[in-house]
Amino acid sequence: MTALYPHERIDDLQNGTLKIIQNPQAFCFGTDAVLLAHYARIKSNLRVLDLGTGTGILPLLIWGQCPVQEIHAIEIQSAMADMARRSMQLNQLDDHIHVHSGDYRDTGLMKPLGTFDLIMANPPYHKEGTGEPNQNTSAHIARFEVTTSLQELIQAAARACKPGGRFCMVHQPKRLTELFACMQTYHFAVKRMRMVHPNIHKDATLVLLEAVYQGKAGLRVAEPLFLYEPDGTVSSQIQAIYQGGRA
Amino acid sequence: MTALYPHERIDDLQNGTLKIIQNPQAFCFGTDAVLLAHYARIKSNLRVLDLGTGTGILPLLIWGQCPVQEIHAIEIQSAMADMARRSMQLNQLDDHIHVHSGDYRDTGLMKPLGTFDLIMANPPYHKEGTGEPNQNTSAHIARFEVTTSLQELIQAAARACKPGGRFCMVHQPKRLTELFACMQTYHFAVKRMRMVHPNIHKDATLVLLEAVYQGKAGLRVAEPLFLYEPDGTVSSQIQAIYQGGRA
Repeated sequence: MTALYPHERIDDLQNGTLKIIQNPQAFCFGTDAVLLAHYARIKSNLRVLDLGTGTGILPLLIWGQCPVQEIHAIEIQSAMADMARRSMQLNQLDDHIHVHSGDYRDTGLMKPLGTFDLIMANPPYHKEGTGEPNQNTSAHIARFEVTTSLQELIQAAARACKPGGRFCMVHQPKRLTELFACMQTYHFAVKRMRMVHPNIHKDATLVLLEAVYQGKAGLRVAEPLFLYEPDGTVSSQIQAIYQGGRA
Repeated sequence: MTALYPHERIDDLQNGTLKIIQNPQAFCFGTDAVLLAHYARIKSNLRVLDLGTGTGILPLLIWGQCPVQEIHAIEIQSAMADMARRSMQLNQLDDHIHVHSGDYRDTGLMKPLGTFDLIMANPPYHKEGTGEPNQNTSAHIARFEVTTSLQELIQAAARACKPGGRFCMVHQPKRLTELFACMQTYHFAVKRMRMVHPNIHKDATLVLLEAVYQGKAGLRVAEPLFLYEPDGTVSSQIQAIYQGGRA
């Protein structure tokens, strides 16, 4: 029996085949995690690393798509890491998905984990000191670059990535210039990009990216993804992703 | 009476209010020029520079939207520059649109022109030595980086741009990494970007960009532009642009 702490609840994923523990007063996963897991093309032979896993949502969604070789997930907030670890136990996946409590900038933690075929990150979108901060510290750390910067994230990904390995992330379009610059600094070639728009008439609110470590230049911008139809109903693209199909 | 040389013809622009001389055996303007002219928000008080004007299509389309303070247009191929100059005479715009035959990398040519509020470029998309070269030299120079590179273009734009002035260009998404890097090197902040897709299901084939010289970071990715409806008819967005409306 997995322990639940105050305010925590168990939510279903993937039509109930997987479950996740979340604390709605701290931070619950969003559409961005679902889109990112879908964007990374998962195959069974991959060693996967998730940088800043939070509740552990990305490893669970990846496993739900396809059981991979193994997944390591790093989380700096120890209570959050503990909750993610209990989610893996709840799904009897703790032999396959290893949650580490610690800082991915710490090479002493990261080096022993070896190198990976696929690195994932759904990082905080906002620079610390910008916008409206969140009251709850845990949610604040998930949304603002309190403990890490975009540059440090990409550096950590480069250290852990096999040459030719992939780094998939989601971010906000307003940070694209910085993103491209950091990717180049750490020898990632951005190979695929997909814009996510609330609907066909709106500016993009998210961008999905795939970069290849030490890859050649040459970028594909895929067809856009719309969250809603113009009439406000959930788009057929999003419905297909939530049902585990291809958009 | 404006002179016409062999193979040249006069084509209507803007519902016949403007005309352009083109040589279909050399190079005729494409949709990208029309989209770029529409993308740059034109106001009457602007001094505009077009780097690599070819037939002079961008200055004419800009003038067609709104008569501006003045336009200077640079073209390295002297025969093409002469044709563009004759198009300006044909429209009685040669007092407003000045076509210079020369190399925009040449500071001796560029410095006396002063600085500009808006710089435009519809440059060659392909690196020299890549893909299938065009038989005709004139068309080849328009499509391949024979006489100039992306980096030299952006450097020339930076030299000629007022602080806070804009640089609007169209390019291919596969060159975005290089584009962002060069923009940053020459102190342009990419502020607006719009992807152009053949239709809603296809990868982007063009990207429209607006950068501000010495501007602050922060990028907006606008709603995508589709050339065709899924059924193959011209999209209503494109129809509106060709009719001089807003997409």
